[in-house]
Amino acid sequence: MAQNKQLLLRKRPLGLPNKDTWELVETNIPQPKDGEILVQCEYVSLDPAMRGWINAGKSYIAPVELNDVMRAGGVGRIIESNHPDFKAGEYVYGQTGIQQYIVTDGKGWHKVDPSLAPLPMYLGTLGMPGMTAYFGILEVGELKEGDAVLVSGAAGAVGSIVGQIAKIKNCKVIGIAGGTDKCKYIVDELGFDGAIDYKKDNIASKLKEYFPNGIDVYFDNVGGIILEHALSKLAMHARIVICGAISQYNNTTPIKGPSNYLSLLVNRASMKGMVVFDYAKDYQKAGMQMGQWMMQGKLKSKEDVYEGIENFHDTFLRLFSGDKMGKLVLKVSEE
Amino acid sequence: MAQNKQLLLRKRPLGLPNKDTWELVETNIPQPKDGEILVQCEYVSLDPAMRGWINAGKSYIAPVELNDVMRAGGVGRIIESNHPDFKAGEYVYGQTGIQQYIVTDGKGWHKVDPSLAPLPMYLGTLGMPGMTAYFGILEVGELKEGDAVLVSGAAGAVGSIVGQIAKIKNCKVIGIAGGTDKCKYIVDELGFDGAIDYKKDNIASKLKEYFPNGIDVYFDNVGGIILEHALSKLAMHARIVICGAISQYNNTTPIKGPSNYLSLLVNRASMKGMVVFDYAKDYQKAGMQMGQWMMQGKLKSKEDVYEGIENFHDTFLRLFSGDKMGKLVLKVSEE
Repeated sequence: MAQNKQLLLRKRPLGLPNKDTWELVETNIPQPKDGEILVQCEYVSLDPAMRGWINAGKSYIAPVELNDVMRAGGVGRIIESNHPDFKAGEYVYGQTGIQQYIVTDGKGWHKVDPSLAPLPMYLGTLGMPGMTAYFGILEVGELKEGDAVLVSGAAGAVGSIVGQIAKIKNCKVIGIAGGTDKCKYIVDELGFDGAIDYKKDNIASKLKEYFPNGIDVYFDNVGGIILEHALSKLAMHARIVICGAISQYNNTTPIKGPSNYLSLLVNRASMKGMVVFDYAKDYQKAGMQMGQWMMQGKLKSKEDVYEGIENFHDTFLRLFSGDKMGKLVLKVSEE
Repeated sequence: MAQNKQLLLRKRPLGLPNKDTWELVETNIPQPKDGEILVQCEYVSLDPAMRGWINAGKSYIAPVELNDVMRAGGVGRIIESNHPDFKAGEYVYGQTGIQQYIVTDGKGWHKVDPSLAPLPMYLGTLGMPGMTAYFGILEVGELKEGDAVLVSGAAGAVGSIVGQIAKIKNCKVIGIAGGTDKCKYIVDELGFDGAIDYKKDNIASKLKEYFPNGIDVYFDNVGGIILEHALSKLAMHARIVICGAISQYNNTTPIKGPSNYLSLLVNRASMKGMVVFDYAKDYQKAGMQMGQWMMQGKLKSKEDVYEGIENFHDTFLRLFSGDKMGKLVLKVSEE
């Protein structure tokens, strides 16, 4: 009889997670009670934010408890339904966790249509990263036509969408990414106006070249030294969107704060944090707009899909090594 | 014949200015040409921002050049006028610099009425510090009734006004200041709800006690460790107003950035810089409101006036030692 493979959080890592952080266990497939559905999880989303969820202590969301299934968004197929609103065979998105089967009452879950878009895309451009990009750049970043925009993590799930939305809005867009392939990708395939390779380029001189009049919006996914570089090139009334700080998530020492934050004063600029969940009531509207842009060929989506729940750890580390392109997805069970 | 005593900037200091930073020289009193006025400067304003003006390099305002008269706002009496809009005997506010006489064409200057308020008050509550407080807390801080407000430099020229305005707007207001006298002053005389003595109190535990539901608005005049403490106690959608960072102005090492700035993300909070000059078109309206509050007894003004242009250096250092209360003013010549 089939078993449910589940990835449990066993230890809170200091710095980068290692193999002892998690354990893959097999348990019985749970049975749905009245009002519940059984979902076979097919694809799970791997995101930098997950690193924060396994730290102890309050953040914007409660931490994953030790010995619980690792939290993750995912898409899967309904195997059995005792819920009036869901039918077996339908596909759904929800907090699947890193496991192959889950029973849920469907609260907070929604259906997705695999005939409209491949399932992994519902974890990227049509999922949380896409929503984060959409609300982050348009609402938090208060993007205006003609703005000069800088985005870090520019070849990633969020950054690649941020830059494309800014291009759609007739902005000048420069992306920061690691390595020649990613830099070529965001310029040649996604239409960014330029790229800075943080592994190779002199960031300060590139910013000077690309932003003669300063940066109007900086969308920050990385924090650290790149945030400082951006602060030093702000235009008046610039907006910095704090979406993440992947360069700092595995620190074993305190996070580095931006020593030149007084640039905010000099430039009457702002730095504002965001969490995508706050925009849930508008996800549908945003999703429709994103879908329209995709059909018009204005917005490209890229998912980097790896296979096998047993490969979770190695795949997860690609988020921090940068060894992936676009949205990182893990296939955890066969259809 | 009377001479003009002028304080010139001679050296750019590293860290705290010393006696060699400036030199007091005597020159002839300048003569006003057609369209100009001669002003005898009586009171000059000493402000933390002046420390930034003597650094080289671009900020929100050009640096004071070496061998130029030190920049400062001041009030004085018109001795001679060749300008149709000004009469001898009238009092004016403008960029007097640290000197006893100045000739100007009057652009950017405005008249003040010594019968309505003592002259030094036009450098404090009715001047730039008052305007900074007014627009900083109300517009940049987007103050709402009932907000829980924290202000640092709370016994200073700006902070004391910020806190009083927030009280007028029915907010809970806690001030951070150095020493028992200042803490007593802001609570007993200005009506703050509480004070934290940063020289003596455990700031973290005091913040926990005073802000059980977090800080809605933090008005920051000091930066450094106090900014970090405030970041760690933010309420959701909190606003941090970056007005200054006096704790960092005399650093000989790079400024300390807030290592916990990701609290902005967790709390969907913002940190926004301001420079008062941006609100110039609304100064008059704000001044009338402030004057009304003063007449109603809701807003108290305190100026700490020292005498003698030759005492500029020692008086200036009081800004950083904290050895003053309210607005620091220097009387540079006799009426």
